[in-house]
Amino acid sequence: MSKEQLLVIGGVAAGLAAAMQARRMAPDLDITVLEKTSDISYGACGLPYVISGLIPQLERLVIHTPEYFREQHNIQIHLNTEALEILPARSLVRVRTATGEEKREFHFTNLVLATGAAAICPPLQGHELAGVFVLRQLRDGRRLLAFIEQERPHAAVIVGAGYIGLEMAEAFRARGFDTTIIESSDKVMSALGGRLRDRVVEELRGQGVEVILGEKVVAFEGAENRIARVVTESGRAFEAQIVVIGIGVRPAVEIAKTAGLEIGVSGAVATDAMQRTSAVNVFAAGDCCETLHRVSGRRVWFPLAQPAVRQGWVAGANAAGLTPAARFAGIVGTNAVKVFDLEVARTGLSFEEAQAEGFDASVTEDESASRAGYYPDGAKILTRIIYDKNGRLLGAQMVGREGVAQRINVYAAALHANLKIEEVNRFDLAYAPPFAPTIDPILRATRPNDE
Amino acid sequence: MSKEQLLVIGGVAAGLAAAMQARRMAPDLDITVLEKTSDISYGACGLPYVISGLIPQLERLVIHTPEYFREQHNIQIHLNTEALEILPARSLVRVRTATGEEKREFHFTNLVLATGAAAICPPLQGHELAGVFVLRQLRDGRRLLAFIEQERPHAAVIVGAGYIGLEMAEAFRARGFDTTIIESSDKVMSALGGRLRDRVVEELRGQGVEVILGEKVVAFEGAENRIARVVTESGRAFEAQIVVIGIGVRPAVEIAKTAGLEIGVSGAVATDAMQRTSAVNVFAAGDCCETLHRVSGRRVWFPLAQPAVRQGWVAGANAAGLTPAARFAGIVGTNAVKVFDLEVARTGLSFEEAQAEGFDASVTEDESASRAGYYPDGAKILTRIIYDKNGRLLGAQMVGREGVAQRINVYAAALHANLKIEEVNRFDLAYAPPFAPTIDPILRATRPNDE
Repeated sequence: MSKEQLLVIGGVAAGLAAAMQARRMAPDLDITVLEKTSDISYGACGLPYVISGLIPQLERLVIHTPEYFREQHNIQIHLNTEALEILPARSLVRVRTATGEEKREFHFTNLVLATGAAAICPPLQGHELAGVFVLRQLRDGRRLLAFIEQERPHAAVIVGAGYIGLEMAEAFRARGFDTTIIESSDKVMSALGGRLRDRVVEELRGQGVEVILGEKVVAFEGAENRIARVVTESGRAFEAQIVVIGIGVRPAVEIAKTAGLEIGVSGAVATDAMQRTSAVNVFAAGDCCETLHRVSGRRVWFPLAQPAVRQGWVAGANAAGLTPAARFAGIVGTNAVKVFDLEVARTGLSFEEAQAEGFDASVTEDESASRAGYYPDGAKILTRIIYDKNGRLLGAQMVGREGVAQRINVYAAALHANLKIEEVNRFDLAYAPPFAPTIDPILRATRPNDE
Repeated sequence: MSKEQLLVIGGVAAGLAAAMQARRMAPDLDITVLEKTSDISYGACGLPYVISGLIPQLERLVIHTPEYFREQHNIQIHLNTEALEILPARSLVRVRTATGEEKREFHFTNLVLATGAAAICPPLQGHELAGVFVLRQLRDGRRLLAFIEQERPHAAVIVGAGYIGLEMAEAFRARGFDTTIIESSDKVMSALGGRLRDRVVEELRGQGVEVILGEKVVAFEGAENRIARVVTESGRAFEAQIVVIGIGVRPAVEIAKTAGLEIGVSGAVATDAMQRTSAVNVFAAGDCCETLHRVSGRRVWFPLAQPAVRQGWVAGANAAGLTPAARFAGIVGTNAVKVFDLEVARTGLSFEEAQAEGFDASVTEDESASRAGYYPDGAKILTRIIYDKNGRLLGAQMVGREGVAQRINVYAAALHANLKIEEVNRFDLAYAPPFAPTIDPILRATRPNDE
């Protein structure tokens, strides 16, 4: 009987979490990780801060080397090795190695698919011009940094006001570039509306970013194969020697599709709580797969680093045969982003999402102070609470100069516990003048109307 | 039939919260507040920051004037008016006014007792010397500031390492005083032990504070009626031209006792969830009364500003006849304090408290990063988790340079929802490199042993 083999496709957050967790469970298991690029084990979320210059070298984002995994954990890493085809029935993956176009096969007893997500690059005229970037993988950051170094751009356009777009606006301003964000919708961070959206836009403009909402980019125009202008539907043209497209990502599921794995309605690989796919012995984890949204009860696609790592742990444990099986509890949709001096965070459903899910949803907004009124350097926190007709909390959004990215987690905890807003309003929360007012913004935002 | 009269004894947090809430419920109610001192409506928690100089004037701590309450809310405030005796059966309070020793009576339909707590000043030799202070009320701060101004002390001793002691250490160092804390136990903040205690002591010493644990102060020695030295049981003498005693507070219940109101085992006024005392038509709120601890299920005395205000709201609403009656949900024991550059926070029961309450308690400690590893200026957060044999969360304590005072609230939320630590470990928490690592310290501290 040959030794059991765990094969992992994808060498970033979910894939390596799976490999490491499998190793903890099964000290003797053969574990192999295939990575398409030449980089593994890095924090892609740090890319904007390398580009801004806050983090001085790209290599700081690398957590561990292939040697670390091989020598410390007996995990084999194959770089520049692209999985081309999975044959679940034959327990086989066909790969291509980028260097020599060499074709190879890897056998597996269990497979963990962690192919992640890819940045969407719309097929607009001129998208192939030099200076037009997406930012997703370490190599994207490397190319962008090299381009800045060589070409010394001074005007930047960012397409899309999602979190990558907002972080890149800060990075480009830190570089001193004239910076414009063009967003086709009237929202930022895809779901942030109302006064919270306005607060973010004010912050961007206050920091010298031109913000254009409700305009679609239709073409990139260049000269000598280099980007020069970004043109919108209304005919406006914005000068740019560098462009970052941050309009979103899509799950990288091509290989899963051709293998016949079930794809969910979200477009990502369908998985259960044990991170199993529709094929026996094939697990999936991270940005390529769906997960349970605990508020809506639906399986959704919500590609973020924290659930990716935790799904990886579950997939790895189960691929290594853990009994009883590990289970991923699902998400409540928590997310935070720094936008210059603002903290912006959300959890649960937005008002529009709650309506779309069929909830009889209401929304309230509150503005209150982050610290005791007499304590210096406090800030106003703007909170939006979404709840159903029984008072059940459905979601929260917060914007402020401090204390937001941590406070949102209290609402996330309340969503996990399926609480009503009146229950959140009873929470006994920490008070000290430097950290909070006597009655915390979390309590203010959930108070009954009679208080 | 004469008009209904609400009488409130005590013009700070709980008392004024009660008066204001009663006004919201009953626009025509006669509302009168009696305040023993000449100050009302101030944030006593800000006193250390006035003494440090961070807040430039003591008056900044005052929220509203008596005129504001009278003119804007038709609430009558009597300053320098000390309630001497409550006669519940006669619906009468006898008072003395400080200025003219005038005696008066106030009738009430409903009474709210909000007499607060008093700083404990041990009857040690020399405690009456000039330069020996407690710090509880605005007038304490006023005297202390005047003393510093006149006497220009350069060496300070703080008796007690509770939160007032720790905050005053920072204030005195900001003034440039040689500062010594003498604490009789081996703990700080009364319940903080283990590595967390050590971290706080390190911070104090790193900031130039001499910290003496496990020594009892036995005498204050002076010259010309001024403090000069603090002497401990072991015979050591510490030079001091100013002393702050911060060994704790006791509920101000003398008037409640003589009125025959039931006093709980904690020594504070016994109240139910509606903030009713044992006497019909007498409510109590704030630091003079007990409250439900949701983790132990016991009624405890936990004198802090946030529950005080909320109890005041409940007492005021019910005294004004709200139906159905308002109820105070109780506390879970959340508290935070800034100690120089450290944030220190706790919620729930400490390990020792859990044992004393009869829980089969365990404790784990974890240290992890406040931000993504590659992001600048992160800090280590030290977390202590207390849980019972079924894995139910009983308490948490945290120490770190950032992100502690807000994170503790996530554990507080979990205590409110009566969750197990494995449920906390499933929380979907916000991640972004400037604010948290991919797996938040909250998750790290609650992870199963196999991760």
